[in-house]
Amino acid sequence: MANLGHGGNTKEISRKNGIDYNKIMDFSSNINPLGMSDKAKASIIENLNEVEKYPDITYFELKSAIAKFENINSDNFILGNGAAEVLFNVVRALNPKKVLIPVPTFSEYYEATEAINAEINFYNISEKDNFSIRKDILDYINEDLDLIFICNPNNPTGVVTDKDLLSDILKKAKKTKTTVLIDESFLDFIKEDLSMISYIEEYQNLIIIKSLTKFFALPGMRIGYGISSNKELKDKIEKITPAWNINILADIATRASLEDKNYIKKTIDFMEHEKTFLYNALKEIKELTVYNPSVNFILFKINVKINLKEKLLKENILIRSCSNYEGLDDSYYRIAVRTNDENIILIKSLKNILNMC
Amino acid sequence: MANLGHGGNTKEISRKNGIDYNKIMDFSSNINPLGMSDKAKASIIENLNEVEKYPDITYFELKSAIAKFENINSDNFILGNGAAEVLFNVVRALNPKKVLIPVPTFSEYYEATEAINAEINFYNISEKDNFSIRKDILDYINEDLDLIFICNPNNPTGVVTDKDLLSDILKKAKKTKTTVLIDESFLDFIKEDLSMISYIEEYQNLIIIKSLTKFFALPGMRIGYGISSNKELKDKIEKITPAWNINILADIATRASLEDKNYIKKTIDFMEHEKTFLYNALKEIKELTVYNPSVNFILFKINVKINLKEKLLKENILIRSCSNYEGLDDSYYRIAVRTNDENIILIKSLKNILNMC
Repeated sequence: MANLGHGGNTKEISRKNGIDYNKIMDFSSNINPLGMSDKAKASIIENLNEVEKYPDITYFELKSAIAKFENINSDNFILGNGAAEVLFNVVRALNPKKVLIPVPTFSEYYEATEAINAEINFYNISEKDNFSIRKDILDYINEDLDLIFICNPNNPTGVVTDKDLLSDILKKAKKTKTTVLIDESFLDFIKEDLSMISYIEEYQNLIIIKSLTKFFALPGMRIGYGISSNKELKDKIEKITPAWNINILADIATRASLEDKNYIKKTIDFMEHEKTFLYNALKEIKELTVYNPSVNFILFKINVKINLKEKLLKENILIRSCSNYEGLDDSYYRIAVRTNDENIILIKSLKNILNMC
Repeated sequence: MANLGHGGNTKEISRKNGIDYNKIMDFSSNINPLGMSDKAKASIIENLNEVEKYPDITYFELKSAIAKFENINSDNFILGNGAAEVLFNVVRALNPKKVLIPVPTFSEYYEATEAINAEINFYNISEKDNFSIRKDILDYINEDLDLIFICNPNNPTGVVTDKDLLSDILKKAKKTKTTVLIDESFLDFIKEDLSMISYIEEYQNLIIIKSLTKFFALPGMRIGYGISSNKELKDKIEKITPAWNINILADIATRASLEDKNYIKKTIDFMEHEKTFLYNALKEIKELTVYNPSVNFILFKINVKINLKEKLLKENILIRSCSNYEGLDDSYYRIAVRTNDENIILIKSLKNILNMC
């Protein structure tokens, strides 16, 4: 909770910089720019009085809806108050002595491990390799290693680890009794099937974590889940999780969102087109080295000495500095793909700022 | 999470018994029968689009609002996704070896302690003593005891432990380095000031837990907090709590509720009158032994062999069987004080059922 370096902290930014909160264009958090599904919004309003009741302690309908969406058995997952809670609970339940985190990556893997005081080892993903995890990661998986985190596609680089390498990791990890946690929170943004969900029955040491709040634009609601066939682990997590951990409006909005097939298709189609548009436009700016995006965010490096975040904030644009990512520095920034209008404003602002350098 | 014996499980009851969910009159959960504050509802609707943003990771405005409501420093508390999360986090952070739970009481103290596999000892509160904690509880507080739970007023008995005894417990516990956790989740329902909040500066070993969802009728929203001046403990809890643990609509609804002074006054006045009405009406039923309520729920014992919960469910009335409370049995039931119309229906149904015995 102490990590204040995340994106999306528009309230705090507005308080500290005297900017009108509602005027901030937030490129710092990776949220679907189309906003939440109209069906989700209508369902919240229609069922607002449900907040006067406790959520169903078994979350029967919610579990059924997610099981249908993921095409898995509804016994095979663990719900969380955001993917962050799932992550903390998985780490607590596994109670690893030693973990491996390929960096740069999402800082909550580190936070969740720090919370139980386990030994953290970093595997450096190098820019020279286009930020790809190399085959030599297999050498780091041994009997001493209890848990490895893989964010796929990786946040903030956007790099996808292919199924062949993930499959090799799982095979080796099964032998060494190492748990593999794959975070697929951004995979829904692309058509291609890169998910490892179909491996959960074969690999008891595999846990897949997903946040629904990025794709369905519900980060304020808090909903995420873990997928695993490991009954012992799921029972342990159940035991350490407080009752009613999913709020009832998150339950209601999630069920409506998952059924909104038009919204899902529209988002994927939009993102396919818009990420390419934004990537190409950024590439035209000679001061930037832009990394090929896979989903709804883009990493770039700036080749001049300038605090780009501060400069853009003066124009009410908030981007994510990557200076606090292990393995990156203050020349790296991450931006979300927003609406076309917003992306055009960003590009224009970037060009103005960099022309003035 | 595994505890399925709580009240308020109307969805599950409706599924298993084929009853229309919306027709269930829920006397099983202790929620303000006036429903949520109109200001809270309006604020949710007005700010619904906020769910598309992350909550403020520092919860600055929410903390300020609660600090003002409780008249404490905003450094002195810990927020939770419901009081249940605060409870689990406090127990996790303290990591006690041995705890004492006066029973009968709220089962989540047991669940939270079970989650970390600590030794649980029960102190039996006897019906002979009108379910009051006796002075001899002081004898159970010694160097071996790490944590004691006190629910005040106690759920499900409604019995208040007076400030003198609580003060003696704190004094003794300070010497033995025992933490005292007092759950004041129902205290807002009465005018009288029975809170131990003013003791937090003097006693670093005191933690007060409060749920806001009972009084403000927001159980679906999940919001609670712990109050303590113990910085070391608060830092530990911060470290083990996932980011963004309060959903943004709970944040918004709580702030609006706390400011609705009319609603607060109306609730207290209503409850003062209505609990007496319901208590007196129940007392007229000769088959029942009714315990004097202090807040918004009433415990009673039935002196004939009958499954009252099942019988009432046939009339769409759900009450809380106390058969799974340590120290009680299937002759005890707890009911919430509902609206006057609903209370009259309950009384009528009770009389019908018992006359037929």
